[in-house]
Amino acid sequence: MAPKPIKFLKQPTSEAWIEQAIAHLDTVLLDHSHCERKAASVALNLMFRYPSHRKLVRALTAIAQEELEHFERVNQWLDRRGVPLAPLSAPPYGAGLKAQVRRDEPERMLDLLLVAGLIEARSHERLGLLAAHCPDPELSAFYRGLMASEARHYGAYWTLAIADFDRDTVNHRLDELATVESELLATLHPEPRIHS
Amino acid sequence: MAPKPIKFLKQPTSEAWIEQAIAHLDTVLLDHSHCERKAASVALNLMFRYPSHRKLVRALTAIAQEELEHFERVNQWLDRRGVPLAPLSAPPYGAGLKAQVRRDEPERMLDLLLVAGLIEARSHERLGLLAAHCPDPELSAFYRGLMASEARHYGAYWTLAIADFDRDTVNHRLDELATVESELLATLHPEPRIHS
Repeated sequence: MAPKPIKFLKQPTSEAWIEQAIAHLDTVLLDHSHCERKAASVALNLMFRYPSHRKLVRALTAIAQEELEHFERVNQWLDRRGVPLAPLSAPPYGAGLKAQVRRDEPERMLDLLLVAGLIEARSHERLGLLAAHCPDPELSAFYRGLMASEARHYGAYWTLAIADFDRDTVNHRLDELATVESELLATLHPEPRIHS
Repeated sequence: MAPKPIKFLKQPTSEAWIEQAIAHLDTVLLDHSHCERKAASVALNLMFRYPSHRKLVRALTAIAQEELEHFERVNQWLDRRGVPLAPLSAPPYGAGLKAQVRRDEPERMLDLLLVAGLIEARSHERLGLLAAHCPDPELSAFYRGLMASEARHYGAYWTLAIADFDRDTVNHRLDELATVESELLATLHPEPRIHS
């Protein structure tokens, strides 16, 4: 079946990534743990940066809580598969996106929201691919269960962006950032990662 | 009634703080919101620093989740009282404690755990005082409800410390840090804060 294309993303994930990930499920699971913790941190940092923005603070509190819950559940999977927690080098993806964030407000806020949304959108797509291709049915069901939240998260970042910015501005900038996002993934990173 | 002294703390909170806090409940509530978000951040930062330490990661995930839940509940109280979210200058307490953290491992980890535990212990004491003296019975009940978690949190930081360090070393260092903690609060900060 052809997966439904994910709104926001310019290019779907390559077959090569799927093969790499399925061949290194334990590493991808460990990287996934780091991603959930980082996603909680991204939400918390945004709250620190915009402490007076009630709508943003409320939405991001819920996201951070959910990311932490996923973090714990991924870690339980690591325990179950006997994979110890360990640091992992980050692929260039996160830093590449961060480099696109403009320095001055209000552009900075828009970019931070859209970059966070794009990462969630890509995670949603890739967890869906893991769910579809993972040979362990229980792990596959676990990935499927997480997908819905990731979709809600990118929706939440999008909603925050259009609440504060003109929709044409948002669409235009999203288009630019989504192009960079897909380019960053065009060459498969040699280390298996969620965003390799 | 004389409140039960809190384990860990060298000196109980002064009457002057209680008077200052009760006279500025809205500011204290706003500061409390910042404290809960910062406490979630402290837990998350510790997880980033020691990503391979399963026991620590598990305990701190639970703490960070609970702090975020409290953060949201404090923010609902702010909404209810018509207090907008806003930045607030931090009192010297946090920076003063942070300055005590030694640079090298494993001392750094011990100090980070004990400082976090001391802050939780002081928060527990002060929320108890707010519960006892706050003229609004519902807000008072809210503070009372949060106290139990704060006590659990300082217990959790203590448990993590004694799991990895010799008990005499922990007690000796806790004694030193608790002395500094009480000294930092000996002069009332002119701005009403949870840790003024």
